[in-house]
Amino acid sequence: MYVENVAGRPVGVLQGGGLSSTALGIWLAEHGVDAHHLVADIGQAPAAELEATVSAWRARGVPATLVDLRTPMAELALDLVRYQARHDGGYWNTTGAGRLVLVEHLAPRLLAEGRTVLAHGCVGGGNDQRRFARYTARFAPGLDVYAPWTDPGALRRFPGRAAMLDAVQDAGLPLDEGSGADWSTDASLAGASHESASLEDLAVPVDARSLRPRWSRWPAGAPDEPQTVTVTVAAGRITDIDGSGPDPVAIVGRAGELGARHGVWLRDVVERRIIGTVCRGVYEAPALEVLGAAWLRVLQTSLDQRSRALYDQLSATLGAAVYEAWYAEAAARSARDALDALLVRASATVTLTLHRGTARAAAVDVTASGAPQQTRFGTGGNRWREPVAV
Amino acid sequence: MYVENVAGRPVGVLQGGGLSSTALGIWLAEHGVDAHHLVADIGQAPAAELEATVSAWRARGVPATLVDLRTPMAELALDLVRYQARHDGGYWNTTGAGRLVLVEHLAPRLLAEGRTVLAHGCVGGGNDQRRFARYTARFAPGLDVYAPWTDPGALRRFPGRAAMLDAVQDAGLPLDEGSGADWSTDASLAGASHESASLEDLAVPVDARSLRPRWSRWPAGAPDEPQTVTVTVAAGRITDIDGSGPDPVAIVGRAGELGARHGVWLRDVVERRIIGTVCRGVYEAPALEVLGAAWLRVLQTSLDQRSRALYDQLSATLGAAVYEAWYAEAAARSARDALDALLVRASATVTLTLHRGTARAAAVDVTASGAPQQTRFGTGGNRWREPVAV
Amino acid sequence: MYVENVAGRPVGVLQGGGLSSTALGIWLAEHGVDAHHLVADIGQAPAAELEATVSAWRARGVPATLVDLRTPMAELALDLVRYQARHDGGYWNTTGAGRLVLVEHLAPRLLAEGRTVLAHGCVGGGNDQRRFARYTARFAPGLDVYAPWTDPGALRRFPGRAAMLDAVQDAGLPLDEGSGADWSTDASLAGASHESASLEDLAVPVDARSLRPRWSRWPAGAPDEPQTVTVTVAAGRITDIDGSGPDPVAIVGRAGELGARHGVWLRDVVERRIIGTVCRGVYEAPALEVLGAAWLRVLQTSLDQRSRALYDQLSATLGAAVYEAWYAEAAARSARDALDALLVRASATVTLTLHRGTARAAAVDVTASGAPQQTRFGTGGNRWREPVAV
Amino acid sequence: MYVENVAGRPVGVLQGGGLSSTALGIWLAEHGVDAHHLVADIGQAPAAELEATVSAWRARGVPATLVDLRTPMAELALDLVRYQARHDGGYWNTTGAGRLVLVEHLAPRLLAEGRTVLAHGCVGGGNDQRRFARYTARFAPGLDVYAPWTDPGALRRFPGRAAMLDAVQDAGLPLDEGSGADWSTDASLAGASHESASLEDLAVPVDARSLRPRWSRWPAGAPDEPQTVTVTVAAGRITDIDGSGPDPVAIVGRAGELGARHGVWLRDVVERRIIGTVCRGVYEAPALEVLGAAWLRVLQTSLDQRSRALYDQLSATLGAAVYEAWYAEAAARSARDALDALLVRASATVTLTLHRGTARAAAVDVTASGAPQQTRFGTGGNRWREPVAV
Repeated sequence: MYVENVAGRPVGVLQGGGLSSTALGIWLAEHGVDAHHLVADIGQAPAAELEATVSAWRARGVPATLVDLRTPMAELALDLVRYQARHDGGYWNTTGAGRLVLVEHLAPRLLAEGRTVLAHGCVGGGNDQRRFARYTARFAPGLDVYAPWTDPGALRRFPGRAAMLDAVQDAGLPLDEGSGADWSTDASLAGASHESASLEDLAVPVDARSLRPRWSRWPAGAPDEPQTVTVTVAAGRITDIDGSGPDPVAIVGRAGELGARHGVWLRDVVERRIIGTVCRGVYEAPALEVLGAAWLRVLQTSLDQRSRALYDQLSATLGAAVYEAWYAEAAARSARDALDALLVRASATVTLTLHRGTARAAAVDVTASGAPQQTRFGTGGNRWREPVAV
Repeated sequence: MYVENVAGRPVGVLQGGGLSSTALGIWLAEHGVDAHHLVADIGQAPAAELEATVSAWRARGVPATLVDLRTPMAELALDLVRYQARHDGGYWNTTGAGRLVLVEHLAPRLLAEGRTVLAHGCVGGGNDQRRFARYTARFAPGLDVYAPWTDPGALRRFPGRAAMLDAVQDAGLPLDEGSGADWSTDASLAGASHESASLEDLAVPVDARSLRPRWSRWPAGAPDEPQTVTVTVAAGRITDIDGSGPDPVAIVGRAGELGARHGVWLRDVVERRIIGTVCRGVYEAPALEVLGAAWLRVLQTSLDQRSRALYDQLSATLGAAVYEAWYAEAAARSARDALDALLVRASATVTLTLHRGTARAAAVDVTASGAPQQTRFGTGGNRWREPVAV
Repeated sequence: MYVENVAGRPVGVLQGGGLSSTALGIWLAEHGVDAHHLVADIGQAPAAELEATVSAWRARGVPATLVDLRTPMAELALDLVRYQARHDGGYWNTTGAGRLVLVEHLAPRLLAEGRTVLAHGCVGGGNDQRRFARYTARFAPGLDVYAPWTDPGALRRFPGRAAMLDAVQDAGLPLDEGSGADWSTDASLAGASHESASLEDLAVPVDARSLRPRWSRWPAGAPDEPQTVTVTVAAGRITDIDGSGPDPVAIVGRAGELGARHGVWLRDVVERRIIGTVCRGVYEAPALEVLGAAWLRVLQTSLDQRSRALYDQLSATLGAAVYEAWYAEAAARSARDALDALLVRASATVTLTLHRGTARAAAVDVTASGAPQQTRFGTGGNRWREPVAV
Repeated sequence: MYVENVAGRPVGVLQGGGLSSTALGIWLAEHGVDAHHLVADIGQAPAAELEATVSAWRARGVPATLVDLRTPMAELALDLVRYQARHDGGYWNTTGAGRLVLVEHLAPRLLAEGRTVLAHGCVGGGNDQRRFARYTARFAPGLDVYAPWTDPGALRRFPGRAAMLDAVQDAGLPLDEGSGADWSTDASLAGASHESASLEDLAVPVDARSLRPRWSRWPAGAPDEPQTVTVTVAAGRITDIDGSGPDPVAIVGRAGELGARHGVWLRDVVERRIIGTVCRGVYEAPALEVLGAAWLRVLQTSLDQRSRALYDQLSATLGAAVYEAWYAEAAARSARDALDALLVRASATVTLTLHRGTARAAAVDVTASGAPQQTRFGTGGNRWREPVAV
């Protein structure tokens, strides 16, 4: 889709406030496109910054609206933990999760107000472009998608981020923190991902010279003293961490503060992309890793052997679904239903130790469990006791 | 099998020098059994200690022989890394690997010298008892297995480890480090596992009060400064770490020293046992985790998407084979052949950072690879470059 | 458990009316055991025969009760079709399903009337003995199980089926059709399995000389003319075959008559047993194969690609659960819930052709589908049309 | 790639002699393209017909060469049986296998004689177009691929098969049997696939009115009498069927004649395509199904439980590899190596019964096996005998 096809149609812009979507807004304005910018709050920045973005567009005569999506974002973040929905068996794919929340909540809204095109600023040819396309087709069938970095005209106008930065600065528009000519950050309350020229070079170590984290301290700068926190799980759901109470935004927020302070899950990943290539990025997911460390201990003590095998199978399915953007399809919904049923018996209190980049389960008080326990030393140490169900 | 069936037959004892196998030796001597004690060196203790064990038995008129198995133990340890053969997708099962090395090399030797019974001191009803039985049937068919802690007579004589300790002290026999009335350690150059009454209690945190590690420092006591080391992989095999040279014992030894100094992989696991129950143990596998961190980065950059999927499948098969003691069967041999073929193209140099309990790949210099790389910032940052094969 | 432990306790006998459970009844009577015989009707024989069995025991002063379980048996048979819950990816395990129905419905009833022992006549050391044990532990915890062919006394009294046959004939008790000294049949409305000395010999072909089928004609004796029948599926459930109407007993009954007439699914299987050995048996499952042929066509046209992948995964899980007797455990229940959710959209009418041992889908009228269709000849034959969702 | 880019370059045509590739030849000639037609013999038609095709092109001044590929085609067909490499767990994908043989042997030959473009006539947007592209990139990197039915000019000249048929008839060129305006057949010695407008309509039954099979009789027209044949397997390879001797072409040829006579594996499939859509086709694979029936019985008796589990996993991988055209990639080669190692112990003689559409193993004489057998009636019928390894 080219800008010529967009001109004259009512467009909705997913305006994150970063360099690329700000440049998209300028590009559409230069073509006189009628565009409503939706600025979603998924916890990527302080509310004041997001309001400043809205105000700046309005000041230019461009309609803009702030939409608070922190609750669905936090709920999905907790699902990632519950289902251990990680990519390639490993990393917390918070960007893929954020795309789902944005499209699920904003695309139907755009359709409802009569917009016929959804525009976003994601990199051409990458994972996120596919995710926006797939989720838009699912949640707002009929809404066309405009991705400027597949439009030759837009690429001529902005051959790269340096040109975008010039245009944004000329326009006097604000930019979020993660926006430079040669680096980029995508954030939400669930975490952040960072890309840059040096991060892409596998031979260059990731450290304070190559990256300024969004939320996290480097482990070397984390407190000397370990910190102990308690996570409560009731009927298969995390209901509290360190006094947060049960509100999802509070749980994820508290876990994120704790994890970031101790440098938990700030790491590079050589990531397999949707089309099978690999590239390196750096990820922060302190909240998910802190909660995930507790959750793994709960799984170990709450699922019998066959239930755990089924859990692991379905967990891998859901990890792929988040990454490849089919989390809302029938297969993924069915897998989630199955896991919800399996997990409903899980209740426990887990004590975690956070220290210099690690979150580890120290102790668990299992109040209901399906995994039979067996001990040796209770018998004198030379034979195993009969299995005991808690 | 009861001691009555053993009396009068030539027995070989797998004598580790720990409490349980020392008590087994006393029990057999009390029944006048003709027993040859084989003391294998798989790196579990300094050679001098093992020689002391041999001397002590000989001094009592019991034939005893030291057998150096450090090379096959190190080779298997490197296979665990190459194949990522971990239990339940997670922990490094060094005890299961040690059992294989012992039986593969000692059981045929016992048969060859005319012994008809193999005796070992493992806990009754547990994983290791099954492992000794399965591997003996495979490597020395016809050799019977005597496991005292399934023999009611032996259990009456030694109702628990306290009774064993009394007997061993009365006899003036030496004991290895990991042997107390209420705690037990199994070690090899690949790692160590610890069990005790308090470690089995899920509600008790594991720390310096509940455990004295065999090889490792606690992360809190590890050096303040990160250490950088280099791991070389050539044609699918680790050929050097930090100047070790290619000898397997040197590689595993050097990796173990480095990892232990920084407290890498000293952790508790709520482990799913062969029969499906769970219990907690504590594990040290500093060598495997250090080498494994480098190896994962090699996998990420050396295997195309389908090769990686096949690798992960077969890796899970081999993890189960090590744990459940069928690593020498046709299915496991076939899986190993397939992975060897897949890995032969992998060559790279990985720079690792070791610090306070963590080993992380910092950089990798890929000299041959099958995974196509893709970057974004080389293009200006708003579209992905075509995939590039190294 | 020995008969001495049973004497004096109130026992419930699962009385199938075959040779082995009739001999069990004699054995218990010879020891004066208070035994209530429950004769379940799972469609294994005409009602008159089952009533005759009840009457014969009562005539000997032994309490006996007929329990109609045809509806739960038919419901489970339809579940096997819905979930394609086959063993080793292949055969219809009707015996495993029958064991579940018997224990789920009879064991709690025995407990409720104060019986403390459940006795059954299954072969010692085989699959069914394990199934009765596992399901009894699940559905009636606390009810002990007595299996005579693991009791040395019973084995001395009846060293084999020839001795049982003599005793039953001496006692004048009736026997069901599948009961000889050297052959045995297990049947239900879902099918039948046959075992005998010659059937166990892999080198002997299975034909009219070695086997008299329970329900089925040999394909060579089936009608010359193919028969066309229609199967209706609505919202994921089979609701009719050939005018049967929606009653499960009617559906399975009608499908069974049709399939048996045409010799559908009368075949030998070299079956992998629970402990991993293999042996040959012969199976009849005409109802399941006829319905299954229709069902596969429904799956192909009703599930999108990812849903089908998930279906196949969970189907394999449930096939194992039926065979290994954990169909009522949490993991299996969760898998069934997930599949129920996936299948709810499947609605279609399938035309089947039955002929000389085969049931094939000839045509399908898909009224609702999730699998996008694509055709070539509609475009002139040299390019594929865009996918169309029904 | 458009014909304008092809003009002036030396082109190689994969000339099957069917409607589409004959029209491709006409189209290239109309543009004066220098094209060498390679007519491969993969057993799709009598040699005389293939020679007639070669002669017809030469008579028009177009260079054409007959290339005998029956041996590699038969070897690959036997691999499909050995690995049970079927699509979606079910059908014998002989078309996918044929594409591999063609490109592996013809594309490097074209490169070697200086051709820079490979042209083929496959349907636009379908599986085979993807297969030709993938295999050409693998076996002849640098050779461009011209697919006319993605070229708008060619589609204007030939909007469909009717237009092609007119042009071919006008040109007086011969056509193979499977070539009509509204139907198409792809064949090799391993089988045949049929597509047509009516076959694509799921609501129309497949029978003698809708399809004329290439090789097979309809079961209703097959002999009344069953036929018994013997298949020999030695060291993991089929070495004879019914006196064929060990030549692969002879084995596949003899198996095909037998199967076709009895109507074995002539059936429709609602096939999941590479992109996830479904459509119906009709397939003949008499040779593969006859040999496959024997092979399955060999697997059941020759692989222990874990080996069979690994076999099934890798077999599924290879079924996908054949369908999706990555059979020559590292992952597939590794899977084949692993299965070759597993199968080397399999040796047996299987007696098959062929009758009216079915091929069934009647008996097997196992001369070497890894699967432990267990029988019941040898013990008197009330307990299982200890497992016996052959």
